[in-house]
Amino acid sequence: MGSPKPRRTSSLVEDELVEFIRGLVENGIEAFGLRDDAALVEVSGAGQLVVSVDSVVAGVHVDLAVCSPGDVGWKALMGALSDLAAMGAAPLGALIALCVPGGAGDGKMALGVMQGVAEAAEVSGCPVVGGDVSSSPELFVAVTVLGTVAHTEGDEDGAGARSDRARGPVPRSGAAAGDAVLVTGPCGASAAGLRELRAGAHEGAAGLAYRRPVARLREGALARRCGAHAMIDVSDGFALDLHRLADASGVGFRLDEVPVAADATLDEALGGGEDYELLVAVGKGELSAFLERFDAEGLRIPLQVGTFLADSEVRLLGDQELERLGWQHRLG
Amino acid sequence: MGSPKPRRTSSLVEDELVEFIRGLVENGIEAFGLRDDAALVEVSGAGQLVVSVDSVVAGVHVDLAVCSPGDVGWKALMGALSDLAAMGAAPLGALIALCVPGGAGDGKMALGVMQGVAEAAEVSGCPVVGGDVSSSPELFVAVTVLGTVAHTEGDEDGAGARSDRARGPVPRSGAAAGDAVLVTGPCGASAAGLRELRAGAHEGAAGLAYRRPVARLREGALARRCGAHAMIDVSDGFALDLHRLADASGVGFRLDEVPVAADATLDEALGGGEDYELLVAVGKGELSAFLERFDAEGLRIPLQVGTFLADSEVRLLGDQELERLGWQHRLG
Repeated sequence: MGSPKPRRTSSLVEDELVEFIRGLVENGIEAFGLRDDAALVEVSGAGQLVVSVDSVVAGVHVDLAVCSPGDVGWKALMGALSDLAAMGAAPLGALIALCVPGGAGDGKMALGVMQGVAEAAEVSGCPVVGGDVSSSPELFVAVTVLGTVAHTEGDEDGAGARSDRARGPVPRSGAAAGDAVLVTGPCGASAAGLRELRAGAHEGAAGLAYRRPVARLREGALARRCGAHAMIDVSDGFALDLHRLADASGVGFRLDEVPVAADATLDEALGGGEDYELLVAVGKGELSAFLERFDAEGLRIPLQVGTFLADSEVRLLGDQELERLGWQHRLG
Repeated sequence: MGSPKPRRTSSLVEDELVEFIRGLVENGIEAFGLRDDAALVEVSGAGQLVVSVDSVVAGVHVDLAVCSPGDVGWKALMGALSDLAAMGAAPLGALIALCVPGGAGDGKMALGVMQGVAEAAEVSGCPVVGGDVSSSPELFVAVTVLGTVAHTEGDEDGAGARSDRARGPVPRSGAAAGDAVLVTGPCGASAAGLRELRAGAHEGAAGLAYRRPVARLREGALARRCGAHAMIDVSDGFALDLHRLADASGVGFRLDEVPVAADATLDEALGGGEDYELLVAVGKGELSAFLERFDAEGLRIPLQVGTFLADSEVRLLGDQELERLGWQHRLG
């Protein structure tokens, strides 16, 4: 309970575990708790820091029957990084609050989670700069990410880079009537993967999409530099997240199609979530240049799936109203 | 489980709760989730950002039998801010990851926690810049704080301010043999308060120290500007935290006394934790000027309780070895 009974520390405790974690993931982790009371992040140039926090709770956000602790760590960091991707920001660092059930055997679960965090950190180029570990009745991971739009990879290459650099973070609220609705890839693979894992298929590409999703950091940064008007990541579901972007922008939309990932159903594509593809609003006049830049930089070319409309009441997939399918926490 | 069954949202859900929270605590909260994928924090001038994360889990760090949800929110933010205080940093903003049990009646617990967070944010001058809310089997709050040593309150006043400004964050590792061991106030009030609350005394100053502790942000910033060599906050216990500072600095110490808060026992002062007083190492030659600055700025004058020693094996309170009393999570 935080305090009142002082006690001698004899078995593996917090300080020792933190030392373990530091040794385990030295490449990915520059600092993890205890070394000082707080960690330091270098910020080059004054300006706006882009920050976000995301939580993963076992039994709520992840199913430990089909995910390893390492998968949980990976998913937690990638989920937070996807919020930076959706702003077009590049990661500067992450802080991990890790709470693990006691009695799990020498902090094995904590080490497993942090191994997955470190792997995702390496793939994303996002150092883990700080963290905190404690005991808890449930596995709980909260990841805070810090990012910047001041200097992102690729700013210096290609034509028009100088003017690109001045572009700020991309909000949800910038979509205008007539803008194209783009998505960086098909959706539903994560939900399909979870379904397959639960059916007993513990390997394969589909399960991988659920256990090891990848934040679209390069795509988001390029979309920002190319003048995207609005952006959101598909974290809770294509339909719900598109509605949120439209709500924030005060516009409607008509979708011609929804790209469905291999093995996924339309419902999984619309409401599954955790795909981390980006939904992007791009001005019609800028569209072809936008798509060409993705091609030129070797990224998958976004798909145009519809158009934003002035009437914010109109939210259509073909001729049908698009329901707000997706994951939301029911708290009431 | 994050995904697979899309569903219609009918009762109070995440998006609505977040709107509620925004309305409730508008003064303290500049942005809370959903408005965009990430929040923005202005950073004035290039340099080092000071960052930390701290978790509070009901049943582990706090006892909901004696704490209101508002107390939990207050304690969570103050605990994280105390890490900034221990570096001598001023807060720029906080991000809150809030996980609350479902079925608690229209998100009442979440609102209560956020009310306490907002009150602590106001008192500390630390805006809440972002957050995330989700359901969970247990109440869990993780707070990430961002701070700076670039421009802290008081930098411009008083003599010597210009040279003060160049001083960086204060590490744990800077204590040298011969330095004075200072503490900003007596310890044990939080543990004593918890003991009294559990005994049925639900009001009074002692309980307040447990339910509404205050991070020593002004004291920490002034200690940094006055050239403190090393610093740590008393979060887990005076004894354990002093040992940690000595470990990081590679020094020993001899304590002449441990200042015990009114109503607290010596054991509570040594091992109780959550007092958030600061332990500071100050060079002998700088000590009197250091203490005078605290007096001049109207802050409680720190108490000299001992001296750091060259032999890192020597850790004494009077003639007795000082045990590593304090709170650590047992994870093995």
